[in-house]
Amino acid sequence: MGKQKQAKTAISPTRAEDYPEWYQQVIRASDLAERSQVRGCMVIKPWGYSLWENIVRELDDMFKSTGVKNAYFPLFIPLGFMEKEAEHVEGFAKECAVVTHHRLEKGPEGGLVPAGPLTEPLVVRPTSETIIGDSFSRWVTSYRDLPILINQWCNIVRWEMRTRMFLRTSEFLWQEGHSAHATEEEALERTRLMLDVYADLAEKYLAIPVLRGLKTPAERFPGAVETMCIEAMMQDRKALQAGTSHFLGQNFARASGIRYQDANEQEQYAWTVSWGFSTRSIGGVIMTHGDDDGLILPPRIAPAHVVLMPIIRKDDDRPSVLEYTNRLARSLQDRFYHQRRIAVEVDDRDIGGARGWDWIKKGIPLRVEIGTRDIAAKSIFLGRRDQSHKERISLQTARFEAGIADLLDEIQQNLFDRALAYRQQHTAVINSRSAFDAYFTPDNLEQPEIHGGFAVSGWCGSSRCEEAIKEKLGVTIRCLPFEGQLEADPAEGRCVYCEKPANTHAVFAKAY
Amino acid sequence: MGKQKQAKTAISPTRAEDYPEWYQQVIRASDLAERSQVRGCMVIKPWGYSLWENIVRELDDMFKSTGVKNAYFPLFIPLGFMEKEAEHVEGFAKECAVVTHHRLEKGPEGGLVPAGPLTEPLVVRPTSETIIGDSFSRWVTSYRDLPILINQWCNIVRWEMRTRMFLRTSEFLWQEGHSAHATEEEALERTRLMLDVYADLAEKYLAIPVLRGLKTPAERFPGAVETMCIEAMMQDRKALQAGTSHFLGQNFARASGIRYQDANEQEQYAWTVSWGFSTRSIGGVIMTHGDDDGLILPPRIAPAHVVLMPIIRKDDDRPSVLEYTNRLARSLQDRFYHQRRIAVEVDDRDIGGARGWDWIKKGIPLRVEIGTRDIAAKSIFLGRRDQSHKERISLQTARFEAGIADLLDEIQQNLFDRALAYRQQHTAVINSRSAFDAYFTPDNLEQPEIHGGFAVSGWCGSSRCEEAIKEKLGVTIRCLPFEGQLEADPAEGRCVYCEKPANTHAVFAKAY
Repeated sequence: MGKQKQAKTAISPTRAEDYPEWYQQVIRASDLAERSQVRGCMVIKPWGYSLWENIVRELDDMFKSTGVKNAYFPLFIPLGFMEKEAEHVEGFAKECAVVTHHRLEKGPEGGLVPAGPLTEPLVVRPTSETIIGDSFSRWVTSYRDLPILINQWCNIVRWEMRTRMFLRTSEFLWQEGHSAHATEEEALERTRLMLDVYADLAEKYLAIPVLRGLKTPAERFPGAVETMCIEAMMQDRKALQAGTSHFLGQNFARASGIRYQDANEQEQYAWTVSWGFSTRSIGGVIMTHGDDDGLILPPRIAPAHVVLMPIIRKDDDRPSVLEYTNRLARSLQDRFYHQRRIAVEVDDRDIGGARGWDWIKKGIPLRVEIGTRDIAAKSIFLGRRDQSHKERISLQTARFEAGIADLLDEIQQNLFDRALAYRQQHTAVINSRSAFDAYFTPDNLEQPEIHGGFAVSGWCGSSRCEEAIKEKLGVTIRCLPFEGQLEADPAEGRCVYCEKPANTHAVFAKAY
Repeated sequence: MGKQKQAKTAISPTRAEDYPEWYQQVIRASDLAERSQVRGCMVIKPWGYSLWENIVRELDDMFKSTGVKNAYFPLFIPLGFMEKEAEHVEGFAKECAVVTHHRLEKGPEGGLVPAGPLTEPLVVRPTSETIIGDSFSRWVTSYRDLPILINQWCNIVRWEMRTRMFLRTSEFLWQEGHSAHATEEEALERTRLMLDVYADLAEKYLAIPVLRGLKTPAERFPGAVETMCIEAMMQDRKALQAGTSHFLGQNFARASGIRYQDANEQEQYAWTVSWGFSTRSIGGVIMTHGDDDGLILPPRIAPAHVVLMPIIRKDDDRPSVLEYTNRLARSLQDRFYHQRRIAVEVDDRDIGGARGWDWIKKGIPLRVEIGTRDIAAKSIFLGRRDQSHKERISLQTARFEAGIADLLDEIQQNLFDRALAYRQQHTAVINSRSAFDAYFTPDNLEQPEIHGGFAVSGWCGSSRCEEAIKEKLGVTIRCLPFEGQLEADPAEGRCVYCEKPANTHAVFAKAY
């Protein structure tokens, strides 16, 4: 791509020219979010927040349909709670924001300084297993109290050293589900059920195909017995982990004292599970679907679906063109908003071609222009965001209205199919170390960012091989895929690194 | 009330015996929330959180219908931002949680200690005028960018010394709306519009009658030019401020540099407004409607509306009674959930009388019992939470189904009417200092918590009289009511404290 002749694109640089910078520019051009003056924290602007609201609504419905109830737990976690689970605190200690004071006072130099030191510092939650575990320890006494299925929508703080909007920010928004069960089997089933909910959300709503699998011990959530994940491929062929579901065994139940009396009146520790999905997924939407003209939004989570743009060439035409446009907007809204959540925008700004480009960059699925000639012909002029901005067509207004829901479904499917084809194209079964090395080594210095893909290879199961690959190539095991996740399961053969017999195959990739 | 003979009630103590403790016990018995181990922070349990979700949904729709869009801003505010508006920082300095470190490390005694000191401490947002103002300063350049109407749903931290669940907690949930306007007039209109939204939410959804008015300068939001409020009366006759809308003039625009070019290309400061409504309102619902048997929920925000309780006296009856019950549940759900959001619970626990009492304490509007005799007679046995638990009636099932929506509307209206009657009964026009003192002085030592009410009295406008009244009686000016808010506007006459000519009348009360 880097060598073809430069086309004029709305986003500069293009993906091929500088993928990371393209990503930042798409966010800027689509008005999704902006950096704040607070280190590593972003401001999610209305267009971006509306995406999140739509994701929240769908996910929340899915959770509730499996019996999960929402609740809310404190933002602050006493240091002593964090320390109860050794691996857990070890995993988060390096990125905890710590509240140490509860007042501000005039300092010696006149400015305000922290005052009122706390006897025990409080950690701003990086995740809530320990504080929710404390509540669960009170809520559970008998097997009759189980399972407890709780979710919370909230903000999370992890003090990241290198941040990137949506993908890795010091503060982000997410949901964290937490459940406690009487048996290991039931807890494992819940772990998988919630992973499947995430996969459904990703595939059916975000139009992002995902692989489901297990993390290796090195990549697990701190304190978990197993971490299940969904992994997606971005257009630079890197993997993005888009949601995780953790089987925590009895580790956190022991740490928090979540005990119950079983049917035989024996005291047992509960089995707990946690699962999380965050605003990071919006980064995945941008990088899966966006093109060199900006964002492309899957209709099922788009804040708006169609923008109507009246074309007014003479002042005399204004009233009739605006009236026609507004009538169409009302008609679409009345027919489709409640039934299909199709949201309509009217943009009558008089800013020339910049208007259409604004909406292209924002990724709205459909753009409609309406001028006097269109009105005379009872037609509209339609552009689809999943097609080139040049491929616009004239369409009878009645047909457009009758077909808009199907058209949006078609775009949704098209985005998913494209992303799946891209992943398939850049997934290779690799059985030799030399081929593996070559696959992950940039061969084109003009575009070092885009190379490789997913390698499906044998792995001996040793963390030494895993670490050596990470060290040498910056490649990690994204998951040990569940059965049926790969188009063709490769023979397990030999470890792609040490060439000893492999006991499993793994999906390797560079990752966000 | 304290002298009448003790009835058996589900909540002990009763309101008359110990109102503050009754409040805590209602929260406990209804399973709305619990104290956490984090000082001043609560856990909002599913029944309580669902109330908040319902409030959020209604309020969010109301905001959006006035053009407001949601966004999200950082949790942390750099100290330097807070300091920009002098009154503002002064108002919040005493209750700020301050983040000073971004890591935890093994300390000399082996435990973890804060490490990685920040160069500039961060304040956990007690409100977001300053951090949102920073974004607005970038978003606004021309009058064409105005108005900007933004809302955020989030958590807030104010380090309160004395906390009470829902009413005053160190962390709470709220929405904060922030807008910027080109003119003072438009900003003032928005301030009032959002207050009216709050009043609608309170009266039509929470069934809480409110007085709308202005705060005195002493009671204003720190940094505001005017604060408008809605004030409700609780059953101990104290006032609860349930929502506020602040006209900020150009104070925060100056502090944050929110400037725009007007149509004449002159640079101007914008006029800003902010408005907030929090989980505190749930405290208002509890204290307005609850009785000595527990919570009473207004149907329009209740997490569930009707509980069906199968009565199984013999094991043989179980299948048929359960089938009838589940069929009724499905029928109600199918007919009314989407159209009217009527949510149905089935409770088939075999725990005797405790089952019905659980639901009474939780405040569900309707309780339905179904036994074999009811089934034979095609009827159900119905209890309404707005009536005594003894007043249950038998009703044809078909009539119950056909009338359930109206019945819930009737309960909603009944709760509002009762609360309004209570407020009217305990609102007095008081024109003399001695009558005023007597009104606010407990005359019955057995129940010192419940006395007084709202006093509508003249006020000279001096903060000295206001302070003296507060000092002496613990009574504050709740608001200077807008025209038409009081049933009968009193003559303005003389200041109830200094007896000089009054320039206004005010509503005085003890308050939360």
